[in-house]
Amino acid sequence: MLDQVNLDQKLSKAEYKQLCSPLKKQLSVLQQTVKEKRLPMVVVFEGWSAAGKGSLLSDVILTLDPRGFKVYSTVAADSAEARKPLLWRYWIKIPAEGNMSLFDRSWYQDLYIAQTEQEIEDSEWERRVQSINTMERQLSDEGYLIVKFFLHISQEEQRLRFEKLADSKNTSWRVTERDWKRNKQYRRYYKAADLMMERTHTSYAPWHIIPSHDKRFALYRIYSTLIDSIQKALERKERKESPREQLKDTPASVYVPKTFTLLPMPSLQEVPLDAKLSSEEYEAELKKAQKKLKKLHNSLYREEIPVIVAYEGWDAAGKGGNIKRVAAALDPRGYEVVPIAAPSKEELAHHYLWRFWKNLPKTGHVAIFDRTWYGRVMVERIEGFCSQDSWQHAYQEINEFERELCDWGAVIVKFWLQIDQEEQLRRFQDRMNTPEKRWKITDEDWRNREKWDLYEEAVNEMLARTSTDFAPWHIIQSQDKKFARIQALHILIDAIEAKLQAL
Amino acid sequence: MLDQVNLDQKLSKAEYKQLCSPLKKQLSVLQQTVKEKRLPMVVVFEGWSAAGKGSLLSDVILTLDPRGFKVYSTVAADSAEARKPLLWRYWIKIPAEGNMSLFDRSWYQDLYIAQTEQEIEDSEWERRVQSINTMERQLSDEGYLIVKFFLHISQEEQRLRFEKLADSKNTSWRVTERDWKRNKQYRRYYKAADLMMERTHTSYAPWHIIPSHDKRFALYRIYSTLIDSIQKALERKERKESPREQLKDTPASVYVPKTFTLLPMPSLQEVPLDAKLSSEEYEAELKKAQKKLKKLHNSLYREEIPVIVAYEGWDAAGKGGNIKRVAAALDPRGYEVVPIAAPSKEELAHHYLWRFWKNLPKTGHVAIFDRTWYGRVMVERIEGFCSQDSWQHAYQEINEFERELCDWGAVIVKFWLQIDQEEQLRRFQDRMNTPEKRWKITDEDWRNREKWDLYEEAVNEMLARTSTDFAPWHIIQSQDKKFARIQALHILIDAIEAKLQAL
Repeated sequence: MLDQVNLDQKLSKAEYKQLCSPLKKQLSVLQQTVKEKRLPMVVVFEGWSAAGKGSLLSDVILTLDPRGFKVYSTVAADSAEARKPLLWRYWIKIPAEGNMSLFDRSWYQDLYIAQTEQEIEDSEWERRVQSINTMERQLSDEGYLIVKFFLHISQEEQRLRFEKLADSKNTSWRVTERDWKRNKQYRRYYKAADLMMERTHTSYAPWHIIPSHDKRFALYRIYSTLIDSIQKALERKERKESPREQLKDTPASVYVPKTFTLLPMPSLQEVPLDAKLSSEEYEAELKKAQKKLKKLHNSLYREEIPVIVAYEGWDAAGKGGNIKRVAAALDPRGYEVVPIAAPSKEELAHHYLWRFWKNLPKTGHVAIFDRTWYGRVMVERIEGFCSQDSWQHAYQEINEFERELCDWGAVIVKFWLQIDQEEQLRRFQDRMNTPEKRWKITDEDWRNREKWDLYEEAVNEMLARTSTDFAPWHIIQSQDKKFARIQALHILIDAIEAKLQAL
Repeated sequence: MLDQVNLDQKLSKAEYKQLCSPLKKQLSVLQQTVKEKRLPMVVVFEGWSAAGKGSLLSDVILTLDPRGFKVYSTVAADSAEARKPLLWRYWIKIPAEGNMSLFDRSWYQDLYIAQTEQEIEDSEWERRVQSINTMERQLSDEGYLIVKFFLHISQEEQRLRFEKLADSKNTSWRVTERDWKRNKQYRRYYKAADLMMERTHTSYAPWHIIPSHDKRFALYRIYSTLIDSIQKALERKERKESPREQLKDTPASVYVPKTFTLLPMPSLQEVPLDAKLSSEEYEAELKKAQKKLKKLHNSLYREEIPVIVAYEGWDAAGKGGNIKRVAAALDPRGYEVVPIAAPSKEELAHHYLWRFWKNLPKTGHVAIFDRTWYGRVMVERIEGFCSQDSWQHAYQEINEFERELCDWGAVIVKFWLQIDQEEQLRRFQDRMNTPEKRWKITDEDWRNREKWDLYEEAVNEMLARTSTDFAPWHIIQSQDKKFARIQALHILIDAIEAKLQAL
């Protein structure tokens, strides 16, 4: 792609003023529309060192209202970031509706720079391409506008700029040994950047290569592209076109969403509910299992394996008590229970996976989710909190999300705690009649109970469509809480042991 | 303080059950009251290595609803944390109303451990004591309940526990060389811990030393203390007693809030408004000043000096345009404009300084606040968004906050942009009449304008009470925007140069 760029394009001062003054004004006004229409925007600035990313970005943001954007500079991952999945530090920075996140360098550093400097194998490169295309598609699918710039200069131009920087006492520190080395190996980076762009140039997140020898021309191109992209996105929004429509224009050679092998799952009706444990069996087993899990937690920590435990189930199925029995075996410095309630205003203004990305554990830690991202295909589906289009695509997105976590090295264990309607009623009534439990029961619980059939249908579909070999669902018979707790502990222990053995 | 502790206290299994079963239940119920009554709680677990912090904490949180607390483990500061003020990583973790933050090790590590291992001088120790007492007082003043535990074991007991840990293949990695060294130097740590507790044992954040040889007894003490502390805090809340009342019971030998030398400030009425610049002077000066600031930004980065620029002023005084002229000179990778709007629900549920702590720059970076923490003594005072008691104490709190930033090494520059009422009216009307500026003017602006006199009174008091030698106010004549911009640039440049020269 880089070959087709004419680097000689320039603008005189007068031309620049004539062309860009109205564009700047237009962009400034458009930003207000972006806010009003609640369009979230991600803008990526990639390109050669000394291509002028900082200075161009500086000019662009001066046309914008600071209440509507944020600039993120990507440097080497810090020690906290290094303990999260690769895309984590970008995911947590995606903007809310009506806002822009501008990335000065981005996830693409982990791709073409990492490849050229031989930090990753080809297979990992391929995986990252897939991950990145998927992340961008997921954002685009939920209405994010993604604009990617690559600021292009020639080897010679880069060398001249480095020399100029190195010559001044004030800026010489900005040119490092590594920069000079990269300039010498310009062709290798060129090829890598070219290949990267080819494979991530999607219809929903296209690359715009900006000839950057002349700053004025580069700015002109950036302003025009931003305005054009925003206008088109607003038009699509106006037409109420599904953002998913855009994907079909991406050739299969560039990107096809992954398909997943699903494990056969029984329907909830087929699940027996008669398993139980005596108090003695329970106490003995609990002690044994907790001791084992405690030991395993030590190994997880040492091997830096993150564990994600997802709890779903009927109201009053016993999630809280079950979680406590797992948590009791863990060192509080190495686990966290993440209770998922209705999303806050801020969370609602972001991609729905955002709040789960934010709550991922560090390597070596355990995150126990009390309710999860599956809310999308249960409560949000049933209550109409998201569009039909959105929840229907969520199965794919969730499988992709969990695949990403699995590739990162996480153990993923998902529990569905199953009880029947009568048992739920008994437990609701017990909560009503016990003063210290009364806070646990709300009107909403009773309302949800009335929609049992709708939920059952949704849960069956969820189990059928998101039980993968890397993140299988486990249906836990929870009519007897004691049995359920031991069962969950055993499944978790098995999953961790399998992971440790596979190391 | 440690000398008075009887380490031999223990409970039999039966005694424990009898005493603690009701306590656990009570704590669990109390947590719901904490939530209802919106009491925010900070609980600190300090103490000897191997005193059982992890295991005790684990038991405590099992009695709690995970939706209401979070555990934070304090380890060495990571690379991002190291670029913020010392207390930053704790401030950002304070809980919202109705929630608890439990700290497994805390800011006290930076005090007595740092002292014993000779990482800090006595003067720095003294400063940290003052900082910590101040932070805890600020939290307490706004209604936070602070409970601090020190888990105490003897040198011999610690040695035995280390040996036991070291003996098991699974836990031997938990005992490090450093631990053994610390055990050998037990007396030094003992003395340091004792002195630390003596100097931070305040009426509003007292220490509770827990004899921890016997886990059951330790738990009993922790449960009782928590319950007692919560009940008292709820009673104080019920009585509508000002939390500030508590301070008076702290002896002066332990803590007296700092007093500050204030610079004399004119009242707004006395400020002349006739300064102006011609377009030619402005263009020439702007170019020169921006060039200089750009150069200084490089030095700031290299010297790792953080800069905090605070903009306040009348609506339409020209803050936005002024900020742009400063920002235009800065590398976008090294600065951020932080627009301060009305606080979100989450922000309202925290101490009001929380959102400003969260937005502090890294060392070497510039944060430009478009409106600031001074909202407390202006809009919040005038609109009654906080109690009179709160805004009247805010002057002291703000001076303390800025002192903390100054001690961290920050350059702090505060601007008040001054215009008169007629000029504001002209600008409001201009905004109304210019389509692309109309979004800038809201009904609220007109409402605020009607309260000009109240604001003037508040601003005069603010200027008089918060202009310190380390964070002085600069009143900028902004009737002429050009003059104001150049003036702000010059003041900022001078402040940075003074800091660099003082290095």
